[in-house]
Amino acid sequence: MVRERFEHDLITVQQDLMELCDKSVDALELSFKAFLNKDIDLALTVIDMDSQINHLEEAINDRVILLLAKQQPVATDLRRLIVVIKAASDMERVGDYAVNIAKDTIRIGKDPFVTSIEPIEEMFHKTVSMLRHIIEAFIEENTVKAKEIAELDDQVDALYGSTISHLMKLNVSNEHVAQITNLSFICRYVERCADHATNIAEHLFYLVKGKHYELNN
Amino acid sequence: MVRERFEHDLITVQQDLMELCDKSVDALELSFKAFLNKDIDLALTVIDMDSQINHLEEAINDRVILLLAKQQPVATDLRRLIVVIKAASDMERVGDYAVNIAKDTIRIGKDPFVTSIEPIEEMFHKTVSMLRHIIEAFIEENTVKAKEIAELDDQVDALYGSTISHLMKLNVSNEHVAQITNLSFICRYVERCADHATNIAEHLFYLVKGKHYELNN
Repeated sequence: MVRERFEHDLITVQQDLMELCDKSVDALELSFKAFLNKDIDLALTVIDMDSQINHLEEAINDRVILLLAKQQPVATDLRRLIVVIKAASDMERVGDYAVNIAKDTIRIGKDPFVTSIEPIEEMFHKTVSMLRHIIEAFIEENTVKAKEIAELDDQVDALYGSTISHLMKLNVSNEHVAQITNLSFICRYVERCADHATNIAEHLFYLVKGKHYELNN
Repeated sequence: MVRERFEHDLITVQQDLMELCDKSVDALELSFKAFLNKDIDLALTVIDMDSQINHLEEAINDRVILLLAKQQPVATDLRRLIVVIKAASDMERVGDYAVNIAKDTIRIGKDPFVTSIEPIEEMFHKTVSMLRHIIEAFIEENTVKAKEIAELDDQVDALYGSTISHLMKLNVSNEHVAQITNLSFICRYVERCADHATNIAEHLFYLVKGKHYELNN
């Protein structure tokens, strides 16, 4: 009975984590859409969405703490709950980066892009795919899948490096320096989101193997 | 007896957290010194220090999980341990930003600065002071002090905003765009470190008041 109760509560908290993931990645996708289309209204909507994401993370923390107090799980079940708190924190940060992208979108305004943003789009699509799949792998406790996803981070890092050096070498007039800086920040935010996907893979490895692995070096 | 045992173990874990804070903020100070003096060797040293910081955070997580399992604390004691995990995660990130500053220092190399970096120094000193004091306030559970420290974040944010717009408006030749981008990133990293100090204040408010507060809006 106790075991059944725990598993039931664990599934509920995992569903909350899935919902947090969906909301954060939705916010990230909307912010990037706002950026591509220079859609200021959509950027403002993304900024407004953040408090929902924050509340959802808080609700997960509260639920986990209640579960720890009521059921006092040990060993793997205890770690299972601690890593949920950690994964929720990573997903909440993705929501923060969506807000950052939205704010830089507003700063860029209606000015035409000074360079092709295709490499940023490519980075972005890889990152979203990592984030969408990592939570599935995490909940299934599928380390093979998690490792594959974490390995994609190298591709995102390589794209980040080449995009930033391309931006820095652009021969633009001074009035465009501000946009170059904004574009660099947006690249950085996307790259950081991919790091959070890798962090979640690391939490899973810690849970399953009982050891810490640095997957993004 | 049980109570004494718990308090003893809690103090040990808090000491580990203090040590993590010291190491992370030391790394941050060294990385900034490397940046000011264009000291590539020192920047490399900071990059090497990061694995120690990561291991210390892992050790704190492991110790808290062991404590949760062995002693099964409830109510405030349980929350007290959860917020240690959260504060440790914030401090570990400060170490990551030290590495980021070190890497941008290496990218800037020996080129002279294209503008005065005094405003960045001012931001940096406020941030270091916030980080050094917030862990004390956290461990003393002193919410008055924590709130005062969190309020300094507004000053850091204001300096960040004015420094970034100054950097963007600089009338520099194209060859200096790369450095402007690197300087903007360093500003951003410093500002993020101050946010982590504010996060720690929020964890304390959550512990003491049982409610979530957003202190950096």
